[in-house]
Amino acid sequence: MSSAINFIRRIPEGEDRERLTCADCGFVAYENPKIVTGSVVVADGKVMLCRRAIEPRRGFWTIPAGYMEMGETIEEAARREAREEACADIAIEGMLAVYSIARIGQVQVLFRARLASPGFAAGAESLEVRLFDWDEIPWDELAFPSVHWVLHAWRDAGAGPLGAPRGNPPDDPRGVRRLGQGA
Amino acid sequence: MSSAINFIRRIPEGEDRERLTCADCGFVAYENPKIVTGSVVVADGKVMLCRRAIEPRRGFWTIPAGYMEMGETIEEAARREAREEACADIAIEGMLAVYSIARIGQVQVLFRARLASPGFAAGAESLEVRLFDWDEIPWDELAFPSVHWVLHAWRDAGAGPLGAPRGNPPDDPRGVRRLGQGA
Repeated sequence: MSSAINFIRRIPEGEDRERLTCADCGFVAYENPKIVTGSVVVADGKVMLCRRAIEPRRGFWTIPAGYMEMGETIEEAARREAREEACADIAIEGMLAVYSIARIGQVQVLFRARLASPGFAAGAESLEVRLFDWDEIPWDELAFPSVHWVLHAWRDAGAGPLGAPRGNPPDDPRGVRRLGQGA
Repeated sequence: MSSAINFIRRIPEGEDRERLTCADCGFVAYENPKIVTGSVVVADGKVMLCRRAIEPRRGFWTIPAGYMEMGETIEEAARREAREEACADIAIEGMLAVYSIARIGQVQVLFRARLASPGFAAGAESLEVRLFDWDEIPWDELAFPSVHWVLHAWRDAGAGPLGAPRGNPPDDPRGVRRLGQGA
């Protein structure tokens, strides 16, 4: 169905930076950072993690999170991701963290939430979904550095009202490290 | 330079929602929400506003803010916007608000900042830049509802450390109102 598309980088008229442009027709494919949103979902003092059924990082554990879609608010997107990945109905309590992953053009807006109704299960993009005590969290099998970061942000925040959201850790302010590079 | 592009909405293979797709070649133009970031810049207790030189809302006042670009952190983007629109070198103090404008697919992440070095001036996208006392703010000439919202968020937060960021106002939780519709 897909024939070759001939994209080149050039500066469109009236702009000051290169954009991905179709050399044939001039269509400009604007690339903007994308918003990932998700939640540390807490039940009985445990946190919910999903084992990924999809690449990247298939088989590794993450919080229910994903790309925000058009027409949603950010809280609606976070609730949809919990529904899709963990069949979970969540109530958002507040914002835990906002991380920039400049290397891949992502901003992650991550919330603290609780189960709004009982029950959860693996959705289509998850192999399994489980609740973990802090000491049971599979630290060596987490999917992304930001999962480490936000779990610690949740732990540090305690159970009360949330204050200012965390940002990137001081040793990775631009979100450029990969796992195994000190994350 | 630009010939007709024949985009239609259809569900790509393996997905569950319609995407803007080229009927000729199958290219999928993913549309994701975009991140706007900016700052309430404070100097001597006054706030900086820029009178827009560009559409939409040319001639109306806004805070220095704009679309985040690839390769930036969100704080870097907010500082760049202050530099571009107000020739201002700012230091970010914390996050004031995160707003969803679902109607147009935007998330706005707005900071409190101060001038890091003296001086400012109208950049290419501004007709003028001024500092306003609270009572001087041209409320009827603000460009967007979220400028109203964030100025009140700044005022309510006081001058000390910032707590949890504000979200949308209760009477517009999805950011669907336009100015003149109760904003």
